[in-house]
Amino acid sequence: MINGKHSSRLLEEAVSAFAELPGIGRKTAMRLVMYLLKQDVDRVNAFGNAIIRLRNEIRFCEKCHNISDEQYCSICSDPSRDVSQVCVVEQVKDIIAIENTHQYHGLYHVLGGVISPMEGTGPSDLRIDSLEKRVAAGDIKEVILALSATMEGDTTAFYIFKKLMPYAVSVTIIARGVAIGNELEYTDELTLGRSIVNRVPFQVNLTAR
Amino acid sequence: MINGKHSSRLLEEAVSAFAELPGIGRKTAMRLVMYLLKQDVDRVNAFGNAIIRLRNEIRFCEKCHNISDEQYCSICSDPSRDVSQVCVVEQVKDIIAIENTHQYHGLYHVLGGVISPMEGTGPSDLRIDSLEKRVAAGDIKEVILALSATMEGDTTAFYIFKKLMPYAVSVTIIARGVAIGNELEYTDELTLGRSIVNRVPFQVNLTAR
Repeated sequence: MINGKHSSRLLEEAVSAFAELPGIGRKTAMRLVMYLLKQDVDRVNAFGNAIIRLRNEIRFCEKCHNISDEQYCSICSDPSRDVSQVCVVEQVKDIIAIENTHQYHGLYHVLGGVISPMEGTGPSDLRIDSLEKRVAAGDIKEVILALSATMEGDTTAFYIFKKLMPYAVSVTIIARGVAIGNELEYTDELTLGRSIVNRVPFQVNLTAR
Repeated sequence: MINGKHSSRLLEEAVSAFAELPGIGRKTAMRLVMYLLKQDVDRVNAFGNAIIRLRNEIRFCEKCHNISDEQYCSICSDPSRDVSQVCVVEQVKDIIAIENTHQYHGLYHVLGGVISPMEGTGPSDLRIDSLEKRVAAGDIKEVILALSATMEGDTTAFYIFKKLMPYAVSVTIIARGVAIGNELEYTDELTLGRSIVNRVPFQVNLTAR
């Protein structure tokens, strides 16, 4: 064809834009673009503008580094949240996952990753200093480490634990064990072993909690 | 959370926009949005604008109904294409698929679908009249039907064949047979039967053509 791969430059640009997204190939990109072509102009404009505004107007909470529209995020500025608890997570997505469980009502702290020598991420690349400052301020009674159950996650947890030792704060880590719905037979040995060591008193409806 | 499902309205809007696309759930949408948040502002703006411009500025070729930036698409206005051949396809995507084979150098005609009583699509919903007008104009010697190998595709092919009978044009249909790379053992009976009936003289390197 004359004008590049597709007959239309506009089409080609839109397909290429979608195909740059992770996990989206040119065929899927084409399908999405064809779908958008069939939608109302207003809806497609809203879609395009949502993307542009997201990138240009988004801010990060100055307290917990969560994504925010204001100086402080809606969690940090919610008076009903328990300010004595701070849950440390790797990324913003983890906050959403924990919020969806409806089991936690404290605040958060987004590290921005985990210590990973392989990827060149050291403690100074993470927001550990600002966590220490929050703890040093005194209101926080418990720091809950909700990091990945990987070598890197454990290293980061241990580093933070040592950093916070001088402060009057209890540091806890989320439970690791057999996932609900999983059969013992197919659970890996490490997880199964950990779940035996960290056993808790039996309660009725344990799986439903 | 206070402000809806996510802590940020901007984030929520962008995630919802992506989640409306076919085959993209909220989790994938979140992943795409997080990816965009990490990209350069310029690149994200280009993405958003590509979508908006696509929907607002795209046109359809007045001759073949292919997607186009101008009055006529780049294929119709390419002087090197064979104007005596017209390949009839269901949708724009099919043109791209056929162009990618590099085996066809004529023009196209996009029907916009196939006759399907189940979906309420009749002949008048398709661009069959404008195909007939093109044939009636006289330059076209061969109309190649490249429709789906389904009941609907066959019905549409037959309808077009009858419509074009009064004109001095040969109507052909693309070959159906055993897909290249497929074993006979796993080819369905209908396809295998059709491939025996429509057998062609043996040529060296048949599969490589």
